[in-house]
Order: sequence, then C-alpha cells, then structure tokens
Amino acid sequence: MRKVAVIGLGMTKFGQLFDRDLVSLAVEAGAKAVRDAGVRQKDVEALYGGTMSGGLFINQEHLSSVLADKMGFRNIPSTRVEAACASGGLALRQGYIDVASGMHDIAVVGGVEKMTDIGTHSTTNVLATAADTEYEGAQGATFPGLYAMMAKLHMHRYKTTEEQMALVAVKNHKNALFNEHAQFQKQISVNDVLNSPVIADPLKLLDASPITDGAAALVLASEEKAHELCDTPVWIAGSGHATDTISLHDREDILTLKATVQAAKQAYLQSGLEPKDIGTVEVHDCFTIAELLALEDLGFVEKGKSGKFTEDGETEIGGKIPVNTSGGLKAKGHPIGASGISQAIEAVLQLRGDAGKRNTGAETAMTHNIGGTGGTAVVHIFKR
Amino acid sequence: MRKVAVIGLGMTKFGQLFDRDLVSLAVEAGAKAVRDAGVRQKDVEALYGGTMSGGLFINQEHLSSVLADKMGFRNIPSTRVEAACASGGLALRQGYIDVASGMHDIAVVGGVEKMTDIGTHSTTNVLATAADTEYEGAQGATFPGLYAMMAKLHMHRYKTTEEQMALVAVKNHKNALFNEHAQFQKQISVNDVLNSPVIADPLKLLDASPITDGAAALVLASEEKAHELCDTPVWIAGSGHATDTISLHDREDILTLKATVQAAKQAYLQSGLEPKDIGTVEVHDCFTIAELLALEDLGFVEKGKSGKFTEDGETEIGGKIPVNTSGGLKAKGHPIGASGISQAIEAVLQLRGDAGKRNTGAETAMTHNIGGTGGTAVVHIFKR
Repeated sequence: MRKVAVIGLGMTKFGQLFDRDLVSLAVEAGAKAVRDAGVRQKDVEALYGGTMSGGLFINQEHLSSVLADKMGFRNIPSTRVEAACASGGLALRQGYIDVASGMHDIAVVGGVEKMTDIGTHSTTNVLATAADTEYEGAQGATFPGLYAMMAKLHMHRYKTTEEQMALVAVKNHKNALFNEHAQFQKQISVNDVLNSPVIADPLKLLDASPITDGAAALVLASEEKAHELCDTPVWIAGSGHATDTISLHDREDILTLKATVQAAKQAYLQSGLEPKDIGTVEVHDCFTIAELLALEDLGFVEKGKSGKFTEDGETEIGGKIPVNTSGGLKAKGHPIGASGISQAIEAVLQLRGDAGKRNTGAETAMTHNIGGTGGTAVVHIFKR
Repeated sequence: MRKVAVIGLGMTKFGQLFDRDLVSLAVEAGAKAVRDAGVRQKDVEALYGGTMSGGLFINQEHLSSVLADKMGFRNIPSTRVEAACASGGLALRQGYIDVASGMHDIAVVGGVEKMTDIGTHSTTNVLATAADTEYEGAQGATFPGLYAMMAKLHMHRYKTTEEQMALVAVKNHKNALFNEHAQFQKQISVNDVLNSPVIADPLKLLDASPITDGAAALVLASEEKAHELCDTPVWIAGSGHATDTISLHDREDILTLKATVQAAKQAYLQSGLEPKDIGTVEVHDCFTIAELLALEDLGFVEKGKSGKFTEDGETEIGGKIPVNTSGGLKAKGHPIGASGISQAIEAVLQLRGDAGKRNTGAETAMTHNIGGTGGTAVVHIFKR
C-alpha cells in the first residue's frame, strides 16, 4: 500500500443552521478543502462522502451523485458510505484505501449532515435507526437510554461519579471556546451539567452532544503528489475499522466496545505506535460516558480508571493526553456524517501547529469515531 | 494494484418474498457465497454491502454493523455503500479496491434490498429519492416518467419503435425461463408488452423492471489466495465508476449517459479490451429503453442503432453480443442494492460455464449497473 497524506481541509460552522441546506454545506466544506490544498477542482479524481441518513433526514438518497454534481466534480467516481455516526470516519478510511491502492492520486473525502429541517420523522427516531430497529428500537430504546445503561454500570462497577462525567463536558466546552467552528462557545460548570434536565438517568442534557448541521472535508494525496503540492503534509500512519454486535444486549460486557479495541489494535499495528506515543486524541464523545469508555478501550488508561484520570486533569490541554481539543462532539457539535471528518481536521491542525490557542505541540494524533453504541468503530493515527 | 478474483457466489430467489426479512435474505446469500468459495467464516476479513435505503424501506440504517453481526462475521470491518440502484455494483468495486490495495486478502461483497414490507412511504416515492429531490421529485417526476422522456426522444430522433423496446422485455423474459432465481419465469410476447397498461407514455408496465426482494453475494480473493483456494477463479480485469448530473435537465444530451461512457472507458482501459472483445454483458435494464441506451453508451452499437440491433436478434444468446442472459433486471427482478451483485454472479457463471441452458461460452463478460437516471454508473469486466 502506498503512503497517503492529508494536504487540505475545510469545514463549515457547526450549529443549527436554519438558513442552509445539505448541498450548500457540503459545497462550502469541499471548496474550502480544495482551496486549502491548493489543487484545482479538475485535479480531484475521486470523492468519498459519509452521511448517515439523507433518506430519513432530507428525503434524498444518491448523495454521491448529487454532491459530485453540485460540488463541480463532474463525472468522477463518487462513493457514499454509511455507518451511522461513524460515516465520516469511514469515508476517510475508504478514501485512504483508494489512494493507498494506486487507483487514484488525489481524492476529496468529506462528511455532511443536515439534521434540523426534519419533516415527518423526529430526529431521535432517525438516530434510533443506528441501533437494532427490531430488538432495541422497537422496545423503545433510544441512544440516551442505551448510553445511560453503560453509565449506570460504569458507576456501579468502578465507582465513577456523575461529577467525573460532568467534567468531560466542562473540559470539552472549555476547549471549544477557542474553536470558531464550534456550535457552543460557552463555558459551563459541573453544577450546570448536574442541574440540567435528566434525559436518561444518570445522563443529563449537558452530558449529551447536540443536534447539529454541518459539513467537513479533507483532500488526500499519494506520497508523490503530497510532496509536489504541499509543504505541510500530515501522513495517515494507521487506519483501523471494526464492528461489534449492533445490540448492546448481545455483548459479553457492555463496558468494553470491542469494535474500538479491534480498530485501535489495527491502527497501532500499522503505525508501529502505542498509546504512550499518541500526542493528542479526538474521541467519540456523543455522551460524556462515551469519552470515558473510549479512553479505556483505546489504551490510554486502565479499565475503570477513566473517571479519576479525567478528574486529575490528565485529558486537558497540558495533561498526559489532551482529549477532544476541538471541543469534541459535545461542544463542537455532532452533525452525524461530518463528525468523523471534523475529528481528522483537528488532528491535522494540531500536527500542523495551526490550532491556535488549542495547540498541544503533538507530533502524532489519533481520531476515534463510532457508530451507534459501538456497532462500528473507525480509528486513524496521523503523523507529521 | 494486486490482481483480484471472484472465488464464490450465492444469491437468494428474487421475488416478492413476503415471508422473509432483509437480514435473512442477506444471511442466506452470504452463507451460500462462503460455502461456494470453500472458505471458512473466520477467513473472511472484510465485508462490503450495497443497499439503497434501509432507512426508508425498513427503518434500519447502520446495516454494515447489523449484517456483519447477524451473518456471523463478528468484529470485521464492514462497509455499507450506497449509490441508489448502483449500490451493488459499487459494493463490488469498493471490495475490489480493498483487496487490490493489499488491505485484506478475502472479502465478501454483497447487496440486498427488502422492498415489499414498506410502511409509511410508497415504494415509488422511496425510489424517487434516487433522483434530485428538489428539482425532479418535488416537480412530480418519478423514474417511469424520467425514462419515458428518454424513450420519447430516442423514438423521435432515431425512429426507434415501441415494438423494438418491447423486444428487449421479450428476450429478457425468455432468458429468465432458464434462471431458477428469477422473479418471472414466464414467456411474454411483443403484444403482451404493447397491450400492458401505459405507466408513462411510451413505456408500458411490461417495459419496466419489477419491485423485488432479494440478496446476492460474492467472495473476492487476492491472487495468492485465489490460486490457493479455487480451481475456477474469475478475474476482475477492469473496474470503472463515474457520475453525471443527478438531474436529467442538466445534461447536454439525455440520450447519452456520460457516467456509463466514462465508467466503461476506465474499465476498457484497465483491462486492455474493447467492446468487440466482450463475450456477454449484463446491462442495467430498469426499463427497456435503458438497455438500448446502455448498448450504445458501452460501445456495442452505434448511437441510435440499438433498436434495430435488438430487432435483428444480435443481443440474444447466439447473437453478436448476448445481453442480460440472466433475464436482466426486467425478468430476474430488481432488488435495488442486490442487482449489481447479481449481474456479477451471472458474469461469473457464464465464465465458469455454469449457466446451464443460458451458457454462451464467453471468455470475457461485462456488467453495467446504474443509479437513478445515470447519476452513477459502475462497469466491471471479468475474465477467465
């Protein structure tokens, strides 16, 4: 497989963007990424896009064609991939495999979701289609409820506290203060989280990531093209992708996301790196408990110790492993299909040293994007 | 890029399968393909699946995880791709790129659609999401109407007749008589087609492919594994994929599907073959006019001459280029996500000499799968 670099990036503001449609968001992100890479539109040979549900959210499937057309990439191969909330990370991976294979030299990979214009379906119902419709959705289980079960058990088994989970939200909001693309640029306190409405005990509203519109895109290039076109290429050192049972009740232990463990193992193996070598990580914090589980499953802290680790400040900028410097899904926002790509954008900005007040000086970065309750996980490792 | 072979195949009966759900169809096709390849379940390293709209048809997204789980391929990377009616062909292509890249040695690629259990949405409305929702769907354009416009213009410009289009349906039904997996195993006549109800003038009901449930799967292997595991590998000699404007009204000429032309060009170039070298072809005959357009755009006959070519019997088994020996989408059935994979199954059966009374003795075969009115096209060339 050939070496592949990220040579350009672009994203829209994340938020409730009532004056924007999906196409305009995707076009903005794609155009910014192409401009950032300094390539011409006609140099782009392939497009990979992640979106969770164009069908249910905006009544439009076949977005691979729609977006290649409206972004001006006419006639090139364009592929939509979907793995619920991991759709963006998966688009990055498929674009990576494509360029690594030698099929194409320059590809745009992106993600987009328009979640706030929904008609006949409620957003929570659409999101529930990322779980097992028959065995979970039909029983009334939605994502807040499923993650609440994990949180309850983590508290019971490891003495994790609601305050420790709240600290995840507080840190991510703090990081987002310095991210102009974030949905929330507003500091919150532990008390704000604890006093926000309970959505599924023990999770409160401020333990949850928001509903968001947005798009993000990257330009990938082969080694030869990257050296030719870019002074600051960021290399994809490892790519991992794994699945697990779609339903929580089928797992041996709901506190270990096997998909995360397997995907991380692949990415570590390919890159030759270990958890201690990773400088900063963007993890999939759809709920605060999800960030804690990810820290353990990715190997940054022993199982059960993530609450204390967070309380000790080890996941803050300046800590042992800065986590979600972008603000994470929690504060930057979570436009499903775009989230995985926006994580990679933060990784690249960190490695370029272009993250402003969020800069960590990291020389390696990891991204971790999951679908559903861990039915899918996609992990990437980046190096300068 | 490494050489890649098809070493196993399996499909369900295509039809209105009211006693089956999507999962059971996918599991059946996958299990048959794995058995046909003679590999063990645990040898399968990656899964690629095409489906148009799990969301709108059965209220289930994240099928990549659901199907890896329920097919028993636990924890492996599983990717769902979607390009409307070209989803199956695209799953084959992405699996091909994956194995060609060196990422994995053995992959299962499949397609599935369950179209007859639909609840709140009508099937035609779901299918309309493969066109431009804003500029076509919202104006009331559905696929029969869009293809009818192409048929009208072909008749006007090239003097193609309704009888010539009907002959496409008659031939494909005749071929399907010998395909036990086909939805329709019933001979029809030109008069049957001409006297069937008009659905969008000049297209009649029997000019259209049916609504179908079904699944199909292939096992792909790297060159080394193929030689190790299989006595009759069929090689993927060329893979092409292209897009066009999603809307018909944006095209220079609605009688040339640029996506087909471009995708075919890529596949011909990669394989070193020309139209005259192709022994048999499965084309995307969602409507009879679509088969005629495909014959022209793939280079088998001059633009405008496909009606006469069909009338002369050149597309029958024994003719210059046998077309849709499986019965095509028209008679074998068109379970959207599965159709592209079932085309590849027919190509492999033909090259293995395992197509029974449909055998053509071909040494090369082509498949042509399109999405929407040609917003996507995926073309593959296979060799013994």
